[in-house]
Amino acid sequence: MQKKTIDHVLRSTWQSVSKMYNEEAAKYNSSMAVGFALLSIDPKKGTPSTSLGPKMGMEATSLSRTLKSMEEKKLIIRKPHPNDGRSVLIHLTDMGKTQRALSKIAVIKFNEKIIGEIGKESLNNFHFVIEKINELIGNKNIFKF
Amino acid sequence: MQKKTIDHVLRSTWQSVSKMYNEEAAKYNSSMAVGFALLSIDPKKGTPSTSLGPKMGMEATSLSRTLKSMEEKKLIIRKPHPNDGRSVLIHLTDMGKTQRALSKIAVIKFNEKIIGEIGKESLNNFHFVIEKINELIGNKNIFKF
Repeated sequence: MQKKTIDHVLRSTWQSVSKMYNEEAAKYNSSMAVGFALLSIDPKKGTPSTSLGPKMGMEATSLSRTLKSMEEKKLIIRKPHPNDGRSVLIHLTDMGKTQRALSKIAVIKFNEKIIGEIGKESLNNFHFVIEKINELIGNKNIFKF
Repeated sequence: MQKKTIDHVLRSTWQSVSKMYNEEAAKYNSSMAVGFALLSIDPKKGTPSTSLGPKMGMEATSLSRTLKSMEEKKLIIRKPHPNDGRSVLIHLTDMGKTQRALSKIAVIKFNEKIIGEIGKESLNNFHFVIEKINELIGNKNIFKF
């Protein structure tokens, strides 16, 4: 059987990971986006709302929807930025911190299971391939003749 | 520096690939979703509309938006399914076939550049890791104690 292309397996594997995380999060009445946002917010200093989107690679509309639901669930609170009047800092509540810890455990568990299955050498090679792909994309000359 | 988790690099790398394809497609006034749909439609026999969504891993709403824009651009036509009155076959027009060939070239080019960069052995290992990840997800016992 012919191997699928690299972009194809990246896409479908990421979709499977995302489905798995969403199913797991649903057991706690949550979602992957919420878990990912929790992990992206600094539990001590908070994180400016403006830097969350780029950090998470999420569009403004979906992010603000996610943050709104997190605020309603009392996982986060918005505070004025101490040094920048136009910006807002997102802080985790105590419940947000607890759920952040649970999300972290899920991520670590998944990653440790994979590493246990593939071994250190394959893991390093995987990161090597991923780096090369990102380098090639960054060079922006893939489609030039 | 600590390596990022596997789910993290899968996500961000797929996002970079998707951004790159969208930028390339934009030069032809198209999008990655359109290119991907073109590649998912059988250029000879057509493809039932109902099997496109699962094949592409796309939600019904986004898929129907994509197909609508493809119909307006005269890349596809919908024909009744010869053996199933309730189903519709999506066929490529001649222009659709031409654009499908261009999409195919882009995908092949990107994949060949990566393989040229990483070599056969790393490619095989990459597929091995991807298979293991999908196996683990399929077993559905990652989060069980």
